[in-house]
Amino acid sequence: MPADAAPSWLLLPELGAVGERLEFSADDLHYLTRVCRVRAGERVTATDGRGGVAVLHLEADGPALRGSVESVEQRERSREAWLLCGAPEADRGDWLVEKLGELGVAVFQPVDCARGTWERAARRRDRWSRLTAAAVRQSRSPFRIELREPLPLAEALGRLPEGGSRWLADEAGPRKAAGVAGSPVVGAVGPAAGFDDPEWSSLRERGFEPMCLSGNRLRSETAALAWAAWWAAG
Amino acid sequence: MPADAAPSWLLLPELGAVGERLEFSADDLHYLTRVCRVRAGERVTATDGRGGVAVLHLEADGPALRGSVESVEQRERSREAWLLCGAPEADRGDWLVEKLGELGVAVFQPVDCARGTWERAARRRDRWSRLTAAAVRQSRSPFRIELREPLPLAEALGRLPEGGSRWLADEAGPRKAAGVAGSPVVGAVGPAAGFDDPEWSSLRERGFEPMCLSGNRLRSETAALAWAAWWAAG
Repeated sequence: MPADAAPSWLLLPELGAVGERLEFSADDLHYLTRVCRVRAGERVTATDGRGGVAVLHLEADGPALRGSVESVEQRERSREAWLLCGAPEADRGDWLVEKLGELGVAVFQPVDCARGTWERAARRRDRWSRLTAAAVRQSRSPFRIELREPLPLAEALGRLPEGGSRWLADEAGPRKAAGVAGSPVVGAVGPAAGFDDPEWSSLRERGFEPMCLSGNRLRSETAALAWAAWWAAG
Repeated sequence: MPADAAPSWLLLPELGAVGERLEFSADDLHYLTRVCRVRAGERVTATDGRGGVAVLHLEADGPALRGSVESVEQRERSREAWLLCGAPEADRGDWLVEKLGELGVAVFQPVDCARGTWERAARRRDRWSRLTAAAVRQSRSPFRIELREPLPLAEALGRLPEGGSRWLADEAGPRKAAGVAGSPVVGAVGPAAGFDDPEWSSLRERGFEPMCLSGNRLRSETAALAWAAWWAAG
């Protein structure tokens, strides 16, 4: 991928309407002036991470900058992926969340399983929030991954989107060509120690089809990422 | 993937011949007795990471264990992937190497580019060596990823394997269905700031075809992993 100068791709909670003036956080100002190196008079792009994309005209605001909304549009996801994922070992969830965000997964649903549960720390939530915000900037996507609170698997299975297709990461399953059917596409990956038999059965009953992601046995977070990459390439 | 008790998958530099007795390092003994919880009288599997797989019968050796080689076989890779990769930001190479190892990539060739070069530290080499050894155990593969020393791109392009197919990660390229043609399959991913135009041309001249890995713009290490996952799923 040939490089270009870092173009702006701001993530703002609210984009406002055309003509509105937006103030930036200290973080955003740093990003604009130090990373993107833009100045008053230039234009930058901002997203709300929910499909909204705005062009802002930068104006001097004392020593800082503010943005005047020139246009706003709403984009829709053409394809959507959800991932149900058991807990990986240690802090391996951090880069998983970052990478799933970059690859454009819509919903990340951590699931608590018989053989592994997710840590529930506010610290983790903050860290993940920063990682997914950075992934939006990096990938220049109008969509931010939605990180849900961990749920018991049975409960998560009761909240699946309708339609699309459902896939279960399974070393012993068949290989599947890319070109994924339907949307939303839902993947399920077990915790480090795997789904147990009742969990396995409940996934199969819900229409999850086993698929092999690699000839090798993969760690949970690697399987999750490999599944998302398979979906993204399709 | 349903779990089973952690079966042994030792990585030993030399497997020896049938009947030979092998001593274990302190690390391997820890792995056998603490992680796999095996004892004298039991059997474990070992690989040399180059396709050799041996079954060892464990014998008491004072308070420790040693292994008597019961059988040895040589396996061949049915598919082979090489990855040429520019330097990602910061220490993002660490988990990349681990994940490429898990996914079964054969050769990782770091390439130095106009817009980014790899750090050359013995410390990094040691860390990567530990990570790839752990990936062999984890994935229970008879093959360990081969980590090459960084080379300038031009030099790396002069050492490519013949045959197979060659792919260039490119946001603007066409999407490719899985089911990868030929072997070895070679992927190329630019450094964080991308390949420059002359590098791009030299890759195209060497038969690298652009392919899109995601609708989003990916970091170098994410693109490298997504490429390997695409190859592994095919």
